[in-house]
Amino acid sequence: MPLVSIKGKTMPASPIRKLVPFAETAKKEGKKIYHLNIGQPDIETPSTLLDAVKNSNIKILEYSHSAGIESYRKKLAKYYNGFHINIDWTDIMITTGGSEAIEIAMMTCFNAGDEIIIPEPFYANYNGFSCAADVIVKPVKSTIETGFSLPPIQEFEKLITPKTKGIMICNPGNPTGYLYSRQELELLKQLVLKYDLFLLSDEVYREFCYDGKEYVSVMHLKDIDNNIILLDSISKRYSACGARIGALISKNKEVMITALKFAQARLSPPTFGQIGAEAALDTPKEYFDKVQKEYVERRNFVIQTLNKMEGVFCPKPSGAFYCIARLPIDNSDKFCQWLLESFDFNGETVMLAPATGFYSTPGSGLNEVRLAYVLNKESLQKAMVCLENALKVYPGRIK
Amino acid sequence: MPLVSIKGKTMPASPIRKLVPFAETAKKEGKKIYHLNIGQPDIETPSTLLDAVKNSNIKILEYSHSAGIESYRKKLAKYYNGFHINIDWTDIMITTGGSEAIEIAMMTCFNAGDEIIIPEPFYANYNGFSCAADVIVKPVKSTIETGFSLPPIQEFEKLITPKTKGIMICNPGNPTGYLYSRQELELLKQLVLKYDLFLLSDEVYREFCYDGKEYVSVMHLKDIDNNIILLDSISKRYSACGARIGALISKNKEVMITALKFAQARLSPPTFGQIGAEAALDTPKEYFDKVQKEYVERRNFVIQTLNKMEGVFCPKPSGAFYCIARLPIDNSDKFCQWLLESFDFNGETVMLAPATGFYSTPGSGLNEVRLAYVLNKESLQKAMVCLENALKVYPGRIK
Repeated sequence: MPLVSIKGKTMPASPIRKLVPFAETAKKEGKKIYHLNIGQPDIETPSTLLDAVKNSNIKILEYSHSAGIESYRKKLAKYYNGFHINIDWTDIMITTGGSEAIEIAMMTCFNAGDEIIIPEPFYANYNGFSCAADVIVKPVKSTIETGFSLPPIQEFEKLITPKTKGIMICNPGNPTGYLYSRQELELLKQLVLKYDLFLLSDEVYREFCYDGKEYVSVMHLKDIDNNIILLDSISKRYSACGARIGALISKNKEVMITALKFAQARLSPPTFGQIGAEAALDTPKEYFDKVQKEYVERRNFVIQTLNKMEGVFCPKPSGAFYCIARLPIDNSDKFCQWLLESFDFNGETVMLAPATGFYSTPGSGLNEVRLAYVLNKESLQKAMVCLENALKVYPGRIK
Repeated sequence: MPLVSIKGKTMPASPIRKLVPFAETAKKEGKKIYHLNIGQPDIETPSTLLDAVKNSNIKILEYSHSAGIESYRKKLAKYYNGFHINIDWTDIMITTGGSEAIEIAMMTCFNAGDEIIIPEPFYANYNGFSCAADVIVKPVKSTIETGFSLPPIQEFEKLITPKTKGIMICNPGNPTGYLYSRQELELLKQLVLKYDLFLLSDEVYREFCYDGKEYVSVMHLKDIDNNIILLDSISKRYSACGARIGALISKNKEVMITALKFAQARLSPPTFGQIGAEAALDTPKEYFDKVQKEYVERRNFVIQTLNKMEGVFCPKPSGAFYCIARLPIDNSDKFCQWLLESFDFNGETVMLAPATGFYSTPGSGLNEVRLAYVLNKESLQKAMVCLENALKVYPGRIK
């Protein structure tokens, strides 16, 4: 029998999905599970998006341009201009979700064996795309004590070798919820310019910044246009994960020409998703205000409740809809599995993401979990009750 | 300025798209262009598919399962069973177009530096996906004189090295329209078993087999299940290129488990496309009968007309909606560009795909072009008049 490739063998399984079989068994046994494990929001998709698809009048469902529908790209450029991101529609390539934007950016910017520095914990699928592109991730550790702020810039510099070709960040951060300050981004800029690296920034949680804190995009940095690649997605913005529409944005023309070659090979992004995404740009501000208010309330509740639990610590994030909590446990993989397999509180339990999957350094995140506050407050309350009671009886609890 | 990767630089531009700027200029000058250059059918998408999307009642446009919506996979398995392809729904992974099925199959089965043998001319984007996966394509030449039938099996065997890990075919073929016979596939099977290779078969034109000729799938071959990967798409079947829905199918469990890891990294295929694709499985047989009748008439007209032109030879294909014609020209790239830049017949011209882009061996296909008969008969007739007149005055004509 022919064997799958070493790349295929070493491709990491999604850390969030590996618990799914245990969740399925728990469900079959009749347990109710509160899913705080995955960034699938419960917020309704705006009707602007859904109605545009329903009212589309297509006779032939054709390929779109490989870089996306021109009218959508033009309108999308204005959306970014509204965030003081000074780009033209030709600087935008529409992708099949933010996932494809990451994959094409890696294929475009890096060669097999090149190294990329990423502050950890980071979005687990960066590992998968790095594997697909044969790029080596060099993690630099951020810590829960600082709320996962940018690690000291010297820690990045220590890792730089002749193979280092880029730095990648997620801002606001998944899984940390951390929002980088202008000063932090300026430090990154200096390093990027010093070593002439690419700076890839995943900013899909732009709409989710709280407490009046400023969203600073890498595209706001001056005199560094050729090094910057912005990765984006409408999945979280409009609660439209299934549309599979994202974007790769750069003012570096060589990057865009090369990225387009990868895009042409796969022909085009999905047409229905693009129709919806274009219409969604007219979603009224009230939609976002309401969503933001909801997330702030959820976050405040979750953070307060977690920090009241004995032995639990959770920094308060300023963005996205995730937080990482430190728990008094031996092993977060075991704990999250145990929650599904062996625990219930009045027939209910909670599903969390072990933070181990968000670290590239082995042995990290063993006492941390990621919570996505994507459920309504009533469900969140019940989920917190489950977690509190679980921690009281978990056999691997550490004093 | 940081440099884009060598992979990015060596990624081939789509041979079909490279003429697009010339077409745009021609259009601006007021020329009417008959597009026979791209496989975008003019056939209407069945209402089953479009109506299902329009009538969808989604509140939250969520991620689907990474392997696709279960109900769609189950129904799709039955579609294949109807072609005597004996598979279960768990043997199917839904992909974002056939493009992603090819890409994930290559990432799953092959390592950087592995070699894959493909009969040429072949679908140009196989080059792109090979480049993305760092796989080396070893072409084996099929010839226009035989109508692009399978090259002698010894020609494949000559290319086999310890690095050879697979063979890839397209059946019915793009760009050739050739339909492999059972005997040809049995020869491939023997070779695949002898060297324990993967056999990847792109069968997206299954519904387009003519003259009562038998469609034989690689999945019909006995005792070779673990070596077989079927790649598919709904783009041509339902004239739904913009849906971006395909499938990767194998009974090799290790392949499917590994492929799913790549699928999980990109989260899910598009939801609207899957809703449409599931409904499209109920498209009545009359739709396909009508489409097939239309394509046969177009093919017959195009082939007859081409072969009447002086110095032109075009074998009659039995499948898909392409044919490759040999023309009395010096260079098909130059000729196709000249058609757009320097020629018109009563203000009209024709856009063709130079066959050079479908060959991996440099210098091949210089006197061949691919025609996609995806226009109605009236337009095809006018396109043929343009071509005939163009050949009379083309400065690079060879006697």
